[in-house]
Amino acid sequence: MELTHIEHLGIAVNSLEEAIPYYEKMLGLKCYSIEEVKDQKVKTAFFKIGQTKIELLESTDPEGTIAKFIEKRGEGIHHMAFATPSVKDCLTELEAKGVRLIDKEPRKGAEGLNIAFLHPKSTHGVLTEVCEDPNKK
Amino acid sequence: MELTHIEHLGIAVNSLEEAIPYYEKMLGLKCYSIEEVKDQKVKTAFFKIGQTKIELLESTDPEGTIAKFIEKRGEGIHHMAFATPSVKDCLTELEAKGVRLIDKEPRKGAEGLNIAFLHPKSTHGVLTEVCEDPNKK
Repeated sequence: MELTHIEHLGIAVNSLEEAIPYYEKMLGLKCYSIEEVKDQKVKTAFFKIGQTKIELLESTDPEGTIAKFIEKRGEGIHHMAFATPSVKDCLTELEAKGVRLIDKEPRKGAEGLNIAFLHPKSTHGVLTEVCEDPNKK
Repeated sequence: MELTHIEHLGIAVNSLEEAIPYYEKMLGLKCYSIEEVKDQKVKTAFFKIGQTKIELLESTDPEGTIAKFIEKRGEGIHHMAFATPSVKDCLTELEAKGVRLIDKEPRKGAEGLNIAFLHPKSTHGVLTEVCEDPNKK
């Protein structure tokens, strides 16, 4: 299994409108994209720093996973995502090793990536995503 | 202020002995260093993936911050750390902009880095570290 770098960090925020200025004005990063991912019930804002993106996540639905996450523990880091050349190969290997998967097959995420989540029960509490960029093939 | 990449992610775990095999056998990363940081009351294990390190943190004291973090919300991502050429310059700039700081001066962290933490009250819930490698100067 090949994991090359941290592709992004997903950070749950109450409001993009409030959080974007922190990342731009305080940290000096630049928001290069805002995108709604309807099936995940989120609006996302992206920043790039080195190899890694910061993906701010605002819930668009009080019943969505990001809304529930914030309700339980407040704003904060929601997940980390590893880049891989093949999500499918990762899932096959991880499942064979006994890692519990949230997604047994790759699905589409923000920015057109193929993504899948591993279950935090198998990953020492870290909601972990693997993702591949189909445009890089 | 110059932030170049995500230097590391600090992840709170109950036990390095249990968590290291997950990162090595399941994810295929290699633990290259284990180090105790006495003043932070933690034992740390380091992995490298791309530009970023994963720093697992096991508490050595039931009253330590990592023990308290896990007691409150379980294992998971504890902080993210940005690399910068100058922690001191970052702190000066952030304080001038009104960001609340945990450390007003750089101090020594794991791996001999100069580090400082920003307060999650100012960072939308993300405990944020800035760090510089004095050996890279």
